[in-house]
Amino acid sequence: MTAETKRLPTADVHALIRSALERSNVSTGNAGSVANALLAAELTGQSGHGLRRVASYSAQAARGKVDGHAHPHLEPKKPGAALVDAANGFAYPALDLALDWLPQAARSQGIAIAGITRSHHCGVAGVIVEAMAEQGLIGLLFANTPAAMAPWGASKAILGTNPIAFAVPVPGSDPITIDISLSKVARGKVMAARQQKQPIPEGWALDSKGQPTTDPEAAINGTMAPMGDAKGTVLALMVELLSAGLTGAHYSFEQSSFLNADGPPPGSGQTLIAIDPAAFGAHALPRFAVMADMIAQMDGARVPGHRRQTLKREYQSSGIVVDVNLIADIEAIGR
Amino acid sequence: MTAETKRLPTADVHALIRSALERSNVSTGNAGSVANALLAAELTGQSGHGLRRVASYSAQAARGKVDGHAHPHLEPKKPGAALVDAANGFAYPALDLALDWLPQAARSQGIAIAGITRSHHCGVAGVIVEAMAEQGLIGLLFANTPAAMAPWGASKAILGTNPIAFAVPVPGSDPITIDISLSKVARGKVMAARQQKQPIPEGWALDSKGQPTTDPEAAINGTMAPMGDAKGTVLALMVELLSAGLTGAHYSFEQSSFLNADGPPPGSGQTLIAIDPAAFGAHALPRFAVMADMIAQMDGARVPGHRRQTLKREYQSSGIVVDVNLIADIEAIGR
Repeated sequence: MTAETKRLPTADVHALIRSALERSNVSTGNAGSVANALLAAELTGQSGHGLRRVASYSAQAARGKVDGHAHPHLEPKKPGAALVDAANGFAYPALDLALDWLPQAARSQGIAIAGITRSHHCGVAGVIVEAMAEQGLIGLLFANTPAAMAPWGASKAILGTNPIAFAVPVPGSDPITIDISLSKVARGKVMAARQQKQPIPEGWALDSKGQPTTDPEAAINGTMAPMGDAKGTVLALMVELLSAGLTGAHYSFEQSSFLNADGPPPGSGQTLIAIDPAAFGAHALPRFAVMADMIAQMDGARVPGHRRQTLKREYQSSGIVVDVNLIADIEAIGR
Repeated sequence: MTAETKRLPTADVHALIRSALERSNVSTGNAGSVANALLAAELTGQSGHGLRRVASYSAQAARGKVDGHAHPHLEPKKPGAALVDAANGFAYPALDLALDWLPQAARSQGIAIAGITRSHHCGVAGVIVEAMAEQGLIGLLFANTPAAMAPWGASKAILGTNPIAFAVPVPGSDPITIDISLSKVARGKVMAARQQKQPIPEGWALDSKGQPTTDPEAAINGTMAPMGDAKGTVLALMVELLSAGLTGAHYSFEQSSFLNADGPPPGSGQTLIAIDPAAFGAHALPRFAVMADMIAQMDGARVPGHRRQTLKREYQSSGIVVDVNLIADIEAIGR
């Protein structure tokens, strides 16, 4: 089945998302923040974190698993550290507060950190760190997600696929943006295979006994293979400790799903760090450009993040390619 | 050939290293700092970063590739950021300055960063972050190393194997310590295979054309495989930007070897970040213990860093197991 597609201007995509959320018991301010983030995900070509999340987000708000009227609150704890309570609402309004506070703190202190607790799905991690790079700062993000991976040697999922994202500004060019999850492949690929009743390639996942499996059902009930074997699992543990241990958020194994409307709020965590390269001297920005140029000139290599910036400009000028049926489904939400 | 071993008290190991360096044109202060670090490496069981480095370090100091009389200098740039010039000496005296400065800065600001430039081999990365955890802080380290990996899709080595290390304090227990390099296996294993004229397993390394190879000679002239494929290469790029781009140090592809005495100083970089968990509230430390306990209770899993702490205590009370021939070689240095 090939999906029928059309182009929609960015403003229309934003309005579509915002309205569906507003019809699902989300305040205008929170709905606008979520729409900004899902639109940004579409602009990077990551529809799985964009329009395809609207139905799930709306259902969670309508059922009260996510508080659509939450008022997130940022409390500066030290000149370079703040704690943000997302108040069991969507992550994005809390991320907005963190991204508002971090730049000035990083410029005055050299480095600043904001931890978010009682949070939810943070979407495309690269978008968040790019927002810092666009202000001339190095951005780092660590986020935890519901349990999907086991510590190395064990078979029970207690760690999330836990994205790490990083961006640096590059003078006269797009930022270098790195955005990886710590599983070998995205869990969404296993869920898609289950829906289509197709086997998954060996190496993607393990069953509940820790044995390799090609059965997507066994994989969903088991664990995702970490990227880089044992090294990926310890990085996932690092992200747990930084994003949840430090902030007071739930660890992955304490979280409910980001996808369905069942259960209590997930209460996940995110930690953002902003570093001011100017604090270290005028050399830093030009040196970031040296590295970007070095990679851009190599046969076969590409500068991480540049492909998505190209797509973003194309979508902003010509409209976003959307699935016609998905748009109809979103228009029907809450009516 | 099985090496003949004996036990040496830690003080004797320290004196052995310090004396060899002092006979190789290294100042007493710098030799003591290096000896502390190499002793700490031996205590974690990582002899490859311990006694086995003494001959190489001594030769580099004797030839002037490393300035054994360097006076590293720390300049606070912002309340939470400092730049350390290792002055083309050993890394350890510069790391000592960073580790002296970071705790108070992190406690007053919530987070602090120290970048080191004109540096050298930083040894066991886990030891450095553990020093922060032992003071109640979260420690993070990013370090670059001479080029050994290619960006994904390319075949020329421009990225180091670039360690990332992380530690958190755990009340009533040893810290959780994570210490990984970003190649699939350590480059030292390929060098050992070359010395023994043995093939290496497929998957470890690529030849200079980017093709998989089992020939250690082709591997040394080619590139190391990254851990986690493309994801490992972008993490290595992140480490380059944080440890060298930010600090003004040489990128991996601009560095001379850490091992031989040829060429100019490597001029590598390290960046350390310290976070005060207390800034976020009293919850953080007990939550770190919750995660450590969770993993400790799982069949087959182990808490990263705990095994080395056990070994350290055993070596501290009973002496370090050393290779008798290696000790004789070190005693002969500079005589």
